[in-house]
Order: sequence, then structure tokens, then C-alpha cells
Amino acid sequence: MITGKNYIGNQLSAKGSKTFKTFNPLLNIENQWEITEASQDEVNQAAELATEAFKTYSKTSGAKKAQFLRAIADEIEALGDELLQVYSSESGLPNGRAKGERGRTLGQLRAFANHVEEGNWVDASIDTAQPDRKPLPKVDLRKMNVPLGPVVVFGASNFPFAFSTAGGDTAAAIASGCPVIVKSHPMHAATGEMVSSAVIKAAEKTGMPNGVFSNLNSSGIEVGQQLVQHPKVKAVGFTGSIHGGRALYDLAAKRDEPIPVFAEMGSINPVVILPQALNNRAETIAKTYAGSITLGTGQFCTNPGLIIGVKSAGLTSFVNTLAEEIVKVEPSCMLHPNIAGAYETNKSKALSQSGIKVLAGYENDVEPNYARQVVTTVEGDTFLNNPTLHHEVFGPFSLVVQCEDKQQLEDIISNLEGQLTGTIISDDNEVAEYSNVVNALQNRVGRIIFNGVPTGVEVCPSMLHGGPYPASTDSRFTAVGVDSIKRFVRPFSFQDWPNDLLPDELKNENPLGIIRNVNGKLTSQKI
Amino acid sequence: MITGKNYIGNQLSAKGSKTFKTFNPLLNIENQWEITEASQDEVNQAAELATEAFKTYSKTSGAKKAQFLRAIADEIEALGDELLQVYSSESGLPNGRAKGERGRTLGQLRAFANHVEEGNWVDASIDTAQPDRKPLPKVDLRKMNVPLGPVVVFGASNFPFAFSTAGGDTAAAIASGCPVIVKSHPMHAATGEMVSSAVIKAAEKTGMPNGVFSNLNSSGIEVGQQLVQHPKVKAVGFTGSIHGGRALYDLAAKRDEPIPVFAEMGSINPVVILPQALNNRAETIAKTYAGSITLGTGQFCTNPGLIIGVKSAGLTSFVNTLAEEIVKVEPSCMLHPNIAGAYETNKSKALSQSGIKVLAGYENDVEPNYARQVVTTVEGDTFLNNPTLHHEVFGPFSLVVQCEDKQQLEDIISNLEGQLTGTIISDDNEVAEYSNVVNALQNRVGRIIFNGVPTGVEVCPSMLHGGPYPASTDSRFTAVGVDSIKRFVRPFSFQDWPNDLLPDELKNENPLGIIRNVNGKLTSQKI
Repeated sequence: MITGKNYIGNQLSAKGSKTFKTFNPLLNIENQWEITEASQDEVNQAAELATEAFKTYSKTSGAKKAQFLRAIADEIEALGDELLQVYSSESGLPNGRAKGERGRTLGQLRAFANHVEEGNWVDASIDTAQPDRKPLPKVDLRKMNVPLGPVVVFGASNFPFAFSTAGGDTAAAIASGCPVIVKSHPMHAATGEMVSSAVIKAAEKTGMPNGVFSNLNSSGIEVGQQLVQHPKVKAVGFTGSIHGGRALYDLAAKRDEPIPVFAEMGSINPVVILPQALNNRAETIAKTYAGSITLGTGQFCTNPGLIIGVKSAGLTSFVNTLAEEIVKVEPSCMLHPNIAGAYETNKSKALSQSGIKVLAGYENDVEPNYARQVVTTVEGDTFLNNPTLHHEVFGPFSLVVQCEDKQQLEDIISNLEGQLTGTIISDDNEVAEYSNVVNALQNRVGRIIFNGVPTGVEVCPSMLHGGPYPASTDSRFTAVGVDSIKRFVRPFSFQDWPNDLLPDELKNENPLGIIRNVNGKLTSQKI
Repeated sequence: MITGKNYIGNQLSAKGSKTFKTFNPLLNIENQWEITEASQDEVNQAAELATEAFKTYSKTSGAKKAQFLRAIADEIEALGDELLQVYSSESGLPNGRAKGERGRTLGQLRAFANHVEEGNWVDASIDTAQPDRKPLPKVDLRKMNVPLGPVVVFGASNFPFAFSTAGGDTAAAIASGCPVIVKSHPMHAATGEMVSSAVIKAAEKTGMPNGVFSNLNSSGIEVGQQLVQHPKVKAVGFTGSIHGGRALYDLAAKRDEPIPVFAEMGSINPVVILPQALNNRAETIAKTYAGSITLGTGQFCTNPGLIIGVKSAGLTSFVNTLAEEIVKVEPSCMLHPNIAGAYETNKSKALSQSGIKVLAGYENDVEPNYARQVVTTVEGDTFLNNPTLHHEVFGPFSLVVQCEDKQQLEDIISNLEGQLTGTIISDDNEVAEYSNVVNALQNRVGRIIFNGVPTGVEVCPSMLHGGPYPASTDSRFTAVGVDSIKRFVRPFSFQDWPNDLLPDELKNENPLGIIRNVNGKLTSQKI
């Protein structure tokens, strides 16, 4: 049952006076549930509870945290089809996507369970004492990762499961030993409440402290601001727009005690198609990219918004085929009227720039909130000189930049803002001649792809989802994969600490059997 | 020969019109050398050169970087006694300290050389492709750490060698593959120039690109501000005051592209002495701490500025002995008249607070720039209610807080700002009864010490030198030890990248023989 209330720890709570409703973009009507926005009192309560919970939760063993994470996955699964229906009714995303994204979310939770159960992630490091060292004796030092404290997670509009309530950020923070307060995304607040009920059930079943998880509703920005400014909050995870992420980053940086904000923000994901590849298989590439541009109504942060090539017959053939293929795709629904509206506004702004030409766009009438895809083109020097064209148009939009030569290609890449991904489409040996272009691209992105599409973010340890600003606010961490746990921990050293009072991870006898760096050597041996 | 010029890459340069002189605090006179402050033009040149150098230096092998780091150490050694004399004449620190700190600096450079030569630090992670996976094939992903770009290092006043020109931050950045621009500390600019000449000589001898290192002089804050705001600068290392570190952090956070600032700032390093320990060995502890408080004229960031105990006969005996012992210590010279002046000002401010009592202080006349040590005491509730008493007095000063009970002890710890270190003095089994106090302390510090003193920072992999704000601006990284390299790198993923174009660290054949995480298992095997 959806109550529209907040979860302040294990308790449903609705002290605020402001309510709102979510929207079904497919039916173009409001959903039935009345959601109550959290009050400042509830924000404070959630933060206090999380701080209290941190005292015990931060010391909870990897095995116990793994039980909790697996229980969350099980409880989400147990919500069955009803959850998928609510998801679709709040996002317009089809049932297949709902199922796939739920699968990914469960997979993430279970991957983090395995990760903390295995336990190597704490990066245990031990330097044993040398009491006889000259001129000074050496002390015993032992270091491992410990959790930061209460973490606020902002749900993402475009991933109601995988990057929201119990998504990647939440799973990472919970795995690290940090309590989580979710600022539920207003577009899918009911989905968020259902998933929250699963998290709370899992916390109760596995004996986790009250306050290890809270879920707060809001339609505006106030609750989020209150959370980021709350002195007991120690880190923030966010997925969304550059505007929103930067605002949170700025708030956090101005605190008396600044805290890290891990915002994964916009990206246009440049794709460079090299000449021989264009010459040999322009049409195949164009067909592939027509699919990637429109995948999920272009609502992926890895959507290829920028395609770059050097002028040639091959490039002409590519743009012609792309134009033909793009209009064959059946338009689909966007997440919300606001997102559909922003798409139209940003598209119009891009199209109004001097020198931009429409290659092709879907022209027929569509249902409300459906996005009509469009592909455009521009000359290299026009692109170089107009920063507006470097900005993301969130949705099924892409811009093909036609360069004069290799040097202009390199200049364009070097002048891009930070990006999540960069892609090189190349015939086998061609890329070796473009090392300057590849190096320039590498400096601008977090992940570089050979002969593929940027959409499709594999959840695995070697994934880096992030990149130089503004792709993310901190390029030193990934938002996807088990290494994202590192965002919410800090290393901590014990000096000459009694063995029996050390955490198990650092005890001489290595009771957890983890791999540790002992006097410079990786080993799972006892000391 | 000391020219007073800046190094813009390999070139000595003095385009600015402003000059200044350093000061010999022992002789209480200005030093002879005229130092020329860097101009904005020179700042820009250094940043441009560093960016150009980054293109090749970022791809330089661990073996080559190790040669460079070792050559720096060798060239510093080759400067011989003259360097030690200049060091002492600009810091007032004695020859023994100069030698010891030089040894530590050379040790750091060589430890980083070993670290990058071994190569495991890149955290290579490989997930191989599964082309037959259902429903979707899995791509090949390979991740490793890559350098961020040009790094600015601010020299510290209190470590003219180990945390300045070629100190820990510089060694870490150079090891990571980042060019370094040093903002030389104005109090030891001539020492900085000599060390810079060694770095430049090493860069030339080992064939490093021009711009891999620059050294800029300034007496004020402008050059530092220009550097932190320069768009080509990608990270900042700083050791110094909270005021200075926070100003740089704020500047960096306001940039169009915010960059990380790793500032290691002030700390009062709380020491908790438990009742049985006080009861059994108050006098021994007091003698040890009289030494730690005055070590290096109290000019260490780990100086024990705060000692906390519960009222008892033992605590009374401790304060009495501390009072007797502290005045036996012969006062010594501070780094600079400004630092001696700040010590007097901050000491007076602390002493003027209501409820604070002087236990004992050195009363005799001293030479100019010498610091007269003082130990003070205050009641627990007075301390709790007066934040001024929580601030660092940089120099040989300490405050003993006398608590009513265990609960007040815990409250005091919980209300402290972030600290570099926390120390527990305990008889063997006593600490087990104080788990709340220990947990509270752990949440406030970066390193916790059992029955020792916080002064003396061992340089080893398990050291964490940093801590919650304001001990440092980013508690997730250490400023000491080889792991400090992690501040200047970001993980980077290659997707389906051709094997022969991958960095050696990620190639199938593992030509460097490093330990990698391959499909979830640590191994140095080929693929």
C-alpha cells in the first residue's frame, strides 16, 4: 500500500503540510497517490537517527551487512509486479525496461553483498613494529577503510530503480557502513516508497539499527538543501543535471565543515569516427548509432549527443544514412512532461544556433510527452566557437560535427568539457595513427570505447562511470560498480593498538582471511 | 648559487618587479638573498608548460619516473652542507633537524620511486569479455589509475624540506605522472630555490619534459590565488593553517571546473589519559608529554595541544608534574618572527579566556623569536562551552581539561572538530571499558594512538596523516606515505580497447608483472 508518507527510520511519518502527486506521462494524467513532503523537523529527525544508527552500523561486520543487502534485494523482488506497474506509471518506461532495471538493481545489491562479505575492499595495510630500529624505534601501524557517516542519496529521474531509492549509491553507502537518507525523486515518489518499504523490512528482519535508512519526499529543492546543509550529514550522492548537481556541490562546499558531493551529471559522450571506418562501413555505423541515439528515448547519461568526423565521402554517406535511419525509429514517451518540455526547449535552443542544420527529425504528430528525435550537423569551426553547442540536450538528439582535418578534430576534442565517455570508431589499424586524438579524448573522459556505443553501462569492477567535471564533481571515483563504495569511506590508522581491540580486519590472526598488505606484501597469512 | 629567481620549467626567470627577503630568526636579521616574486605572466607560462609536459609525462613508465625521483634525491644530497646551512638560516631549525628532515625527504622520494617501479599502485582491474552472455554480450573492460594533470604544491613553513619544494606532495604528484608547480614558501625561498635546482637537474639528466617542474616565489597570496584559479591546474596540495587552506579550498570550489584541494591544516591532537594510567604512572606520563609538547618548539602539526582526564588524585599529580617538567625545557627558536608573534597572540587569546589557569610557563627572558612554553588547565564544562579553547595555538602550548566524569569526557571528545590524531593513554585492560570514548575519538580523528605521543609521523604505507575537517579538507586521503599518490589520480576505463594500444599495465601479457584484479581475483598471471 502506498501511503505517500516519509520513512523516518522505521516509522512512516507525514508531519509536513505540503503534498504533491506524481504523473503518468503515458496516460498524461496525475497518479492517484498523494505524497507528503518532509518537514524540516523530519529532516532533522532522520539525520539524528542516522547519526545514532551510525554508532553501531559503522561497526557491523561485512557478513551482517551482506545479509542486509541481500534481504533488500529479496524484499524488492517480493514486491512483484505491483512495483513494476507503479514504476511504469510514474516514468512511462515500459515493462521490459522496468524488469531489466529491477534485475540490475538486485544484481547491484547482491554484488555489494559479495564484496563486503569477501572483505578485501577495506584495503587493510599493516606495518609491524621494529622496536630495535635505529635511530628511532618503529611503531606498529595498521590502516583500513572506515565509513564516513550518514550519506544523503538523491534519486535520479531516469533510473527509478538502479540510481534511486535502493540503487547504486544507496547500495554502496550501505555496504560501506554508512546509514542512508534518500531524498526521493519527486517524479517517482510512490515507486520510492515501495522500494523504501522493502529496505525497512530488510533492516528489521536482519536486525539493523533504526535510522540506518530513511526516505524523504519533496517536490521542490528545500528538503534536499536542508539535508546537504545538515551538520550530521557527511557525504552526498547525486545523479542528475549539471545545474542541480553543481548547486548541491556549492552548498556542500560552503558548509562550516565541507563534505564531498558525488554528482554524476550531464554528458554529450563524443563519438569520433575515423576516415577509413567511414569509408568502409558508414552505413552500418549510422544504423547502429540511430539505435543508440534513440535508446530509452535518449534518456541515458551515456547517450551519444556528439558525433565527430573529418569531411569525406564516407562522412557524407554516414550523415545521409543516419538521416534515413533516425526517422524510422518509432518515438517513445519521456519520463515526465517537464522532461519532455525541457527537451523541446533545449532542442529549439540548439536548432536556433547559427550554422546548425537539421539532417532529419521525426515530423509526424506524436502522443503527449513523446519525444521526436532529431539529428543535426555543423561545421567544425562553428562548433569550436559556440559553447552552446557543447551542452547536453537530454533526449533523442545528436549533433554531427564535420571537421576540416585531423588537427581540427584534435582541437575540438581538446576543447570539450569533461565527459562520461568517449568512443572511437576505427578500422583495425587506423586508430594507431590518431594517438593525439586518442590522448586528447582520454584527458576529457572517464571511459573510452573502441568500436562500440556508449549506451549500456556494464556493472562490473572495471567500469568507471564518472569523468572530469562536469561529467562528475569528482573524477577520482566511479558511480557504477563495486569500487563506488570508496566514495563513502576514509582510511583510518591504528598506532600500537592492542590486538584484541583492533577490528577483525587488522588483527594478527586475520580471522576474516582477507588479503592484506603486510609490510609491503599482499597476503592473507596471519602475522 | 642562489639567484632569487623563479624556475619556469628549466629556465630561471625573474620578470616580476616585486622582491622580498627571507629572515634568519636565530640571528634576528634578514638574509642576504633578494627573491623576485613571480608575475602573472610567469604563472601562466608555468601552467602552459606543465600542460604541455603532461602530454608526455602522463605516459611515462613507472621505471622512468623512478629514475627521475631517485635522481632528485641524489641531486639534493649532492647539494651537501650548503643546503643545510641555508635551511637553518631560513628556519632557525638546528643542523640535526635539517639533516633528519633531509633524510626523511630523500627517503620519501626513494619510497615513491620503489612504489611506481613496482607498479601495483595503479589498481589495475580487468573484466574480460563474455561475447556469448545472455541476454546481452559482456564487453571487455579494463581500469587503472591515470594522473589528473598539473598539480600545484604549496610549501609548508614548518617543513622546509619534507613538506615543501620536493617534499611529500611533490614526490606523490611526480610519482603519479602529474607535473608540479611549487608555490614556494616565502619564509624559505632560498632553500626552495636550491632544492628546485636539484629537481631541474634531475629532470634534465633523466630526460623528463620541460615543464614537469616549476618553482614560483611570492611573499603574498596573489601568486597562490592565480595558480589555484588557473584553468590548466587540476589539483592542489597544501600544508598550513586552517585559514590559508580553507581560502584555497573556497577558491578552487568556485572555479568553473572545481578542482580538489588537499589541505592538511591545524589540529590540537587530543590525548585522553584514563584513570588507572593516571593513578599508576602520572609522573612518567607527564615527563613524556613535557617533551612532546615542546618538541621542535611545538611546531609540529601533531603537537599535543589538548590533554583530557577525569578529576582524580592521579590527574592532580599529572598536572603538578607537567608543571614542574615543562619549565625545565630550554626554550628554542621559532621559524620566523611572524610565527613567534602569532604564537604570542594566540597564547594570550587562550589565556584571556574565562576559567583558564596557567599551570606553569617558562618565565625567564629569551632571545628574540624564541617561544616560551606554557601549559594550562580548565574545567570540563568550561571547555565544552568555549569554542575558542578548541582552536590550535601553534607552538609549545597545551591545555589540560579536567572532566567531572566519564560521560563528560565522551561529550568533550564528541564535540571536538576533526583532528589529525587522537591518543589514549591506558593501563593494559582499562581501555576496554571506554569503548564509547574510543569510538567517539575514532570519529573525530585520522589516526588513533595507544600509549604513545602523537608527534613523530612514521612514513610508511599504513600511516594515515589527515582526518575529518578541519584537520584536512578531504579525510579520504593521506598526506604522508605512498598512498598519498592516490590524491592525484583518477581511475580510467578502456572498453574493448585493442590489446597492443592498451597501457602496459592492462595488456593481456602483463609485461610489467604487476598484481591485477582479473575477473575478481588478484593475480600477476597473464590473460
